[in-house]
Amino acid sequence: MNMVDLIKKKRNGHELAEEEIEYVISAYTADSIPDYQMAALMMAVYFTGMSKRETADFTMAMAHSGKMADLSAINGVKVDKHSTGGVADTTTLVLAPLVAACGAPVAKMAGRGLGHTGGTIDKLEAIPGMRTSLSMDEFIRNVNSIGLAIISQTDDLAPADKKLYALRDVTATVDIMPLIASSIMSKKLAAGADAIVLDVKVGQGAFMKDYKSALELADIMVNIGESAGKRTMAAITDMNQPLGLAIGNSLEVIEACETLKGRGHRDLLDVCMFLGSYMLMLAGIASTREEAVAELEHALESGSGFAKLKQMVEVQGGNADALDDYSLLTQARIKYEIKAENNAYISSLSAENLGLCAMRLGAGRMIKDDSIDLSAGIMLNKKVGDFVRKGETIAVVHTNDRQKLSQVLPDILSSIQMTEKPVARPKLIHALVSRDGVESF
Amino acid sequence: MNMVDLIKKKRNGHELAEEEIEYVISAYTADSIPDYQMAALMMAVYFTGMSKRETADFTMAMAHSGKMADLSAINGVKVDKHSTGGVADTTTLVLAPLVAACGAPVAKMAGRGLGHTGGTIDKLEAIPGMRTSLSMDEFIRNVNSIGLAIISQTDDLAPADKKLYALRDVTATVDIMPLIASSIMSKKLAAGADAIVLDVKVGQGAFMKDYKSALELADIMVNIGESAGKRTMAAITDMNQPLGLAIGNSLEVIEACETLKGRGHRDLLDVCMFLGSYMLMLAGIASTREEAVAELEHALESGSGFAKLKQMVEVQGGNADALDDYSLLTQARIKYEIKAENNAYISSLSAENLGLCAMRLGAGRMIKDDSIDLSAGIMLNKKVGDFVRKGETIAVVHTNDRQKLSQVLPDILSSIQMTEKPVARPKLIHALVSRDGVESF
Repeated sequence: MNMVDLIKKKRNGHELAEEEIEYVISAYTADSIPDYQMAALMMAVYFTGMSKRETADFTMAMAHSGKMADLSAINGVKVDKHSTGGVADTTTLVLAPLVAACGAPVAKMAGRGLGHTGGTIDKLEAIPGMRTSLSMDEFIRNVNSIGLAIISQTDDLAPADKKLYALRDVTATVDIMPLIASSIMSKKLAAGADAIVLDVKVGQGAFMKDYKSALELADIMVNIGESAGKRTMAAITDMNQPLGLAIGNSLEVIEACETLKGRGHRDLLDVCMFLGSYMLMLAGIASTREEAVAELEHALESGSGFAKLKQMVEVQGGNADALDDYSLLTQARIKYEIKAENNAYISSLSAENLGLCAMRLGAGRMIKDDSIDLSAGIMLNKKVGDFVRKGETIAVVHTNDRQKLSQVLPDILSSIQMTEKPVARPKLIHALVSRDGVESF
Repeated sequence: MNMVDLIKKKRNGHELAEEEIEYVISAYTADSIPDYQMAALMMAVYFTGMSKRETADFTMAMAHSGKMADLSAINGVKVDKHSTGGVADTTTLVLAPLVAACGAPVAKMAGRGLGHTGGTIDKLEAIPGMRTSLSMDEFIRNVNSIGLAIISQTDDLAPADKKLYALRDVTATVDIMPLIASSIMSKKLAAGADAIVLDVKVGQGAFMKDYKSALELADIMVNIGESAGKRTMAAITDMNQPLGLAIGNSLEVIEACETLKGRGHRDLLDVCMFLGSYMLMLAGIASTREEAVAELEHALESGSGFAKLKQMVEVQGGNADALDDYSLLTQARIKYEIKAENNAYISSLSAENLGLCAMRLGAGRMIKDDSIDLSAGIMLNKKVGDFVRKGETIAVVHTNDRQKLSQVLPDILSSIQMTEKPVARPKLIHALVSRDGVESF
């Protein structure tokens, strides 16, 4: 096959055949197609798109570009969960233990944070001693023995995606819907789960800024998953304001623990219950959503969910005491309280700006190789619609660097909008996309 | 400036500013913008185009990427001529001496053949001893002393174009009108002429297959030239059949000599007279076309045009005797005559196929580094509309390789179509494009 002909074919608006797509991905992974040809192809895809069939083939080819995790040694239906990235979104740390406590095996490969969004692996590493790089054997052994393991994605998972994403990042070809979908799904498919529940974030702090885009992305990803023979569902949930209250790694571990102890914020818990209910159904643990929610509530109220998280931390070498005695987690030296100047309602909390502020405080990375400060971040006390009395604390900024605090503080303050009139709480869960169509909530 | 932002700007359909274009070209030439970013930009240009202003800026930036030839030491208005590439098109070897004989200084940098089209430098090198790589000093000295010099384009002429063309060739971004125009014009502008006459070929054997495309290209090129302050005109002439009778390097030298001696084919001469008349007008030698044509006819009939060619060959070290005694040119050992099987009219002679057949016989190059056989080629005896008697020779194939002959012959034969009914001679000159608009012929 000749790459110039394939670029021209796509450029001229024709569909690439399955074997042509397989050639492109395997030759690119093997460095026998140069970056400049791939860049031209990606830009052609920007303009002419890819059909659902092409997108599914493209994703499968990327999934097969490295090792495909074989989870067949784990009993039961393995359901994976993936979020497109949010702020104060520690869903995985709450949801995975709850679902595992209900009897569904959770073998999760997770990533690190980038830009204004956090990553599960960074959060777990805020727990002293926690190991997130396990061998495949240990990973499978842990899931078989306690039903839960969360590890860092290995480098050999969909290497084509890694290479291609780095290229797209520098050639203005990131914002192409089928490529965004295939990047996410190739890693999910390579990670070996039997079924997948996706959380597509929508709003000011999400990659998908509007509902239409979020729906399109969800639809493409569900189609990819189902084409690969994996039951796939995608929730569309709000990311205009931070989901929970904590932004930052130690802070989010604390929030996850508090939530599993029954003291979490309703929004974070609602999203966990929503996603968890579909995970339990896909795992065959529950046959209706009501039944699934009842199971999850029992795991929450009985404390079996929290016990599962502690168990996983112990098995992966972490100090589980830190999940009760939060002083054992890395702590920031400076805790700056932001107080209300008047009685007022919170009218908006910019998820993107607060995420970026937390990143600048050290909680996240601007670029992949940046080091992070696990203790830094922002702890909110209020969310949109909440009433705040004059002098009451709205948020606490956690940092080890007074200079950074003074640089970032003005932007944090301007991310918090107040008004005198009551404000409605925004809608949290918008829709569920499955092979059966779109269900609105 | 950030290249990713510039790619995105173009991708989103916006115009790049002059300084942005200058940055792209200079940084690309200096290897500080990588090929993959340039490839993405070129593909974006394929879809979103470039305005006339952008195209002119792009061309000027490419022209300035290397040395700009300074021809100011040559007296008079230097008019350059460029063809977009044809078959049996030895116009330059006829036209340049005629125009020079009329008193207009001709300082021409020419190229080599590629694919089915020939190149002036290859043809000149068929003359024993001929030097085509002169220093700039010698080039200028020769024009000042005899009014005519034709040399090979130097490598430092618009190096950005050379680098970019190689990239476009392997990224399916060749067929983009503003880029085709800027590639041609950047070299013309860098070559230092005061005015430019372009010959845009149209038809089956040309890069522009239809009149609309040819007109668009001509219009863009005229605009670029005029924007750069050079009077520029573009003829649109036919390339459905070969222009002259000779395809191949030695053969075309012979045809040029025969034409200058008054025994050439009418088509080749008509195109030379047409282009030459505008060259004389732009040079200020003639004020009307009629006057210009009269001057050229005088140069032809008096033999001063042919004498000028001989003089140039001598000054550039060639054996000028070869222009009278053709046996001094490299000759092919095998001369295979194609004879008519019936009385018939020639209905079509595929310029592209005959050009490719000649190339396969050794007259041209498939890729840049191929070596060529200066003696190989095809000599036609007839053109479209001509009547041929049974047994009469239609064409003679010149080659040194009997195996190649048997491989290529069937394709030559199928490139020559005959019919019993009379066929009209095709239109040769379609239009002239200038800053004043389009004049049809």
